[in-house]
Amino acid sequence: MDKILRIDMGAEGGPKVTVSPLGKYAGLGGRAMTSAVISGEVPALAHPLGAENKLVISPGLLSGTIAAMSGRISIGCKSPLTGGIKESNSGGQAAQVLARLGYAAVILEGKPGTDDLYKIIINKDGVKIEVDNSLKLLPNYDLIEKLKPVYGDKMACLSIGPAGERKMAIASIACTDMEQRPTRHAGRGGPGAVMGSKGVKVIVLDDTGMAMRAPKDPEKFRDANKRFVEGLMKHPVSGQGLPAYGSNVLTNILNEAGGYPTYNFKEGRFAGASKISGEVMAGLESKRGGNPTHGCHRGCVIRCSGTYNDKDGHFLSKQPEYETVWAHGGNCGIDDPDAVAMLDFLDDNYGVDTIDMGVAIGVAMDAGVAKFGDAKAAIDLVHEVGKGTPMGRILGGGAAATGRAFGVERVPVVKGQAMPAYDPRAVKGMGVTYATSTMGADHTAGYAVTSNILKVGGFVDPLKAEGQVELSRGLQIATAAVDSTGMCLFTAFAIIDQPETYQALLDLLNAFYGLTLTADGVVALGKKVLSMERDFNTRAGFTAKDDRLPRYFSAEPVPPHNVTFDVKDEELDKVFNW
Amino acid sequence: MDKILRIDMGAEGGPKVTVSPLGKYAGLGGRAMTSAVISGEVPALAHPLGAENKLVISPGLLSGTIAAMSGRISIGCKSPLTGGIKESNSGGQAAQVLARLGYAAVILEGKPGTDDLYKIIINKDGVKIEVDNSLKLLPNYDLIEKLKPVYGDKMACLSIGPAGERKMAIASIACTDMEQRPTRHAGRGGPGAVMGSKGVKVIVLDDTGMAMRAPKDPEKFRDANKRFVEGLMKHPVSGQGLPAYGSNVLTNILNEAGGYPTYNFKEGRFAGASKISGEVMAGLESKRGGNPTHGCHRGCVIRCSGTYNDKDGHFLSKQPEYETVWAHGGNCGIDDPDAVAMLDFLDDNYGVDTIDMGVAIGVAMDAGVAKFGDAKAAIDLVHEVGKGTPMGRILGGGAAATGRAFGVERVPVVKGQAMPAYDPRAVKGMGVTYATSTMGADHTAGYAVTSNILKVGGFVDPLKAEGQVELSRGLQIATAAVDSTGMCLFTAFAIIDQPETYQALLDLLNAFYGLTLTADGVVALGKKVLSMERDFNTRAGFTAKDDRLPRYFSAEPVPPHNVTFDVKDEELDKVFNW
Repeated sequence: MDKILRIDMGAEGGPKVTVSPLGKYAGLGGRAMTSAVISGEVPALAHPLGAENKLVISPGLLSGTIAAMSGRISIGCKSPLTGGIKESNSGGQAAQVLARLGYAAVILEGKPGTDDLYKIIINKDGVKIEVDNSLKLLPNYDLIEKLKPVYGDKMACLSIGPAGERKMAIASIACTDMEQRPTRHAGRGGPGAVMGSKGVKVIVLDDTGMAMRAPKDPEKFRDANKRFVEGLMKHPVSGQGLPAYGSNVLTNILNEAGGYPTYNFKEGRFAGASKISGEVMAGLESKRGGNPTHGCHRGCVIRCSGTYNDKDGHFLSKQPEYETVWAHGGNCGIDDPDAVAMLDFLDDNYGVDTIDMGVAIGVAMDAGVAKFGDAKAAIDLVHEVGKGTPMGRILGGGAAATGRAFGVERVPVVKGQAMPAYDPRAVKGMGVTYATSTMGADHTAGYAVTSNILKVGGFVDPLKAEGQVELSRGLQIATAAVDSTGMCLFTAFAIIDQPETYQALLDLLNAFYGLTLTADGVVALGKKVLSMERDFNTRAGFTAKDDRLPRYFSAEPVPPHNVTFDVKDEELDKVFNW
Repeated sequence: MDKILRIDMGAEGGPKVTVSPLGKYAGLGGRAMTSAVISGEVPALAHPLGAENKLVISPGLLSGTIAAMSGRISIGCKSPLTGGIKESNSGGQAAQVLARLGYAAVILEGKPGTDDLYKIIINKDGVKIEVDNSLKLLPNYDLIEKLKPVYGDKMACLSIGPAGERKMAIASIACTDMEQRPTRHAGRGGPGAVMGSKGVKVIVLDDTGMAMRAPKDPEKFRDANKRFVEGLMKHPVSGQGLPAYGSNVLTNILNEAGGYPTYNFKEGRFAGASKISGEVMAGLESKRGGNPTHGCHRGCVIRCSGTYNDKDGHFLSKQPEYETVWAHGGNCGIDDPDAVAMLDFLDDNYGVDTIDMGVAIGVAMDAGVAKFGDAKAAIDLVHEVGKGTPMGRILGGGAAATGRAFGVERVPVVKGQAMPAYDPRAVKGMGVTYATSTMGADHTAGYAVTSNILKVGGFVDPLKAEGQVELSRGLQIATAAVDSTGMCLFTAFAIIDQPETYQALLDLLNAFYGLTLTADGVVALGKKVLSMERDFNTRAGFTAKDDRLPRYFSAEPVPPHNVTFDVKDEELDKVFNW
């Protein structure tokens, strides 16, 4: 990871490859890298689909090492959905492979003048870029099936589906998992549309012949990793809940807490929640020959992913994440686990963010386009997205565009991005994160569910305004740092609750890079990343007025607790006061 | 005009009417009234389609008097298209009739809880509000035909078509003309969607039994009016060009100047322009039994409107305005005058802004939805809007939404509103107005074509950056004032060029209200209006970054002059420095 690969897709005579040393980007990885490049190199008023925007793909600082859980990749750009800076984060194999190939970042620049579709192949021999129009409009699963015989069973792919080629604002970038399935997605904020605007269908990575990245102090590194894994296994969330049921373990928990947004955020509890809970879906997976406990990348020890088979025992989709189950489930009034898994598959196949897709369908249902609870209608709507019909174009623009198209007032978005699976009125810490995150409404940006609901890192009453700003601030800072390491965010539960696990993470970084990083250094890194992102957004025209929830969340109480979002604007404006 | 009528459409038990004295709004009319109410009463972060938004309908200060040209009405709201403050201005009969009925403003507030559709009848006896679901989804022409037998040949209507009922962001409010045709539209920025969100289909006005408004000094008023009319008739633009050919006299002029945006703003000159010029269309009107010289309201002496018949001599539409002819003509590569007139009719009938509609079609053509020059396809696309299909929902969201839906980079909008018929690179004064107007891209907000092209009020080279900020500033201030008087903006040519005509306008105001207003007072009024609007927009989250053209106008030269927009950002930021 000592070099940066730049590909100018708009160069005269065809794409031009440049490999350079890290220079001023030395010491950065993941989100710190993507946000530094976007903030420093992309004009803030650039059109997201224009030649001036860049797509930055960066493994984390510990990716490609033997460190457990280090397989997250950051993909950054100016977002076509929010108009602000974007880092979208994914599991799968790409981070490990790219890191072992030695690239701290791959940066797609410019824009081709033709409609040709390109594939980029990166391996130990270098970089090849080829026009391959036979790939046009292939869904992600079909694409990968077509590439496998050519590039073999070691390849890891980053690809877009038809949504990305059509430059839809919620288009994702798919990352293949250990079974070469395009199941992990950098979904939020439309990075797939930016990849599509650059004419790139797929980046095929292969690290055959490359070694594991070597730490400065291998012994200390191994020891730290051992303590890190022990810590993860010891914590009830990463050691038990997530492996057994995946992230969907949260359905029953959030529903019980009254913070499960139902019928397009009209209620906080869904009568059908128990039918689509993690417990039920994991049970179906076991029964039908799927697998509820599985890692999404090499080196994963939490193994929260899984495989969901249909009733005949055939692969239907990966085990859908909690936010996906919610977006297509309770939010749309749907309680059929097979339908939810099918929607997950279609989202992955066409290449769209499952959260914004589900919320867009919920908004469309609110507008009368289909009835809440109509699973077949929801499936048909996602097919429209895949086909690129006008209806698909509307939904593929996300919840915000769907709300505008159908004249809906109740549209749960911030900075144009759909809210995820936690009602901001009943889980107020999440409300603060949604409102103020540089990314638009995003649960991963500062996952206050920890203290609000799971009682990880103490307890802050989710129904009260007090303490939420401080909670969100601390989490947003820590997350920006963790997102730069390549570490899965699900390590955070153990890191927050167990000082020795936090120390193990610091020791991993220090042993690898020969540093003397302390907790203060991690906080400083997180603040630095957030400040770069805030600076970009300010230059793009964002103000404190963009750090607000839609006003109806302050006016309409959500049952069962009948609470509104009452964190004051002045308080929200203090989140980044440091 | 000594009272304000408020109708709370969301009141419990049904709409509630309140009539109150002017109070703090005394002395305001037209745009000064609408912007004062919106800025003062609507929370800047309110949802445009929510209960907190208001629709303010206000005749100008001189409307309802014998003063010539005083029939403009201002309709204000928070815009569903721009998210900022909006004053959309229309001719037709409504201003005169409403003023004679004594209302300085009608304010629709709140939002009904049901899907019922209301009609509001205002006459000398008061206000009646009735549910009439038989009017649902009627196009404007059909609606008026249905109302005529009931309300008679004195009624003047303000109505919405299906686009407004469906809350499309470019929905207009139609104002009937002297022949009770719904041909004049408050089109820009989607006021029709706000009226639709309040459940109001039509406001039927009848001033039978009401007298002309009486000036404080009738003799001075008559004398001033005489001088005012003489001045208008003496000026070549208002005395000759506009009466003979209507506003479409500009097609040949702008095309010759190389500032006629063609093929979605790719070129500045259209090969087919001469086929859709004002001269040609006026000739067809005369030949086919239409009428090229006609007033849109009682008291009009310029008579720039007209009637366009089809080749069989049947009414096809009003004489389309220059911006409409351009939006559907050169901008879409269409040079068939009958097709353009049909598109004008359909826009009026379904109730959409002709500018944003045409630019949306141009953007869709750029995306490959139809071919440039395909008139039948353009007509079909407007029918989609009328039918409310998904494609219609996209286009009915305007050029900005269409660009987002189809992933188009070259979208000529500012603050989400489509640019009109003057390329900002080749008519740079218009570029400054587009960029900085509180309204989004809007030619009427500061019509720099005067000095840039028509050499009215001196000459500022349209191809050079110098002097454009000063030009636009002066015009924006003057326009904000004129828009408050109820005077048609086409009086401006004579007012700018002929000091005695400007004095006649001041004398009209002074004689009517018993004031001693000077030119300085007019400037002060204009600045006050703009400051209120800027203040609202700032509170709604707008910054200097919103006072910019899309970046491609600074990068891509437009033929034939091959100029870019090169007025510096720092200069744009000085427009409102006073």
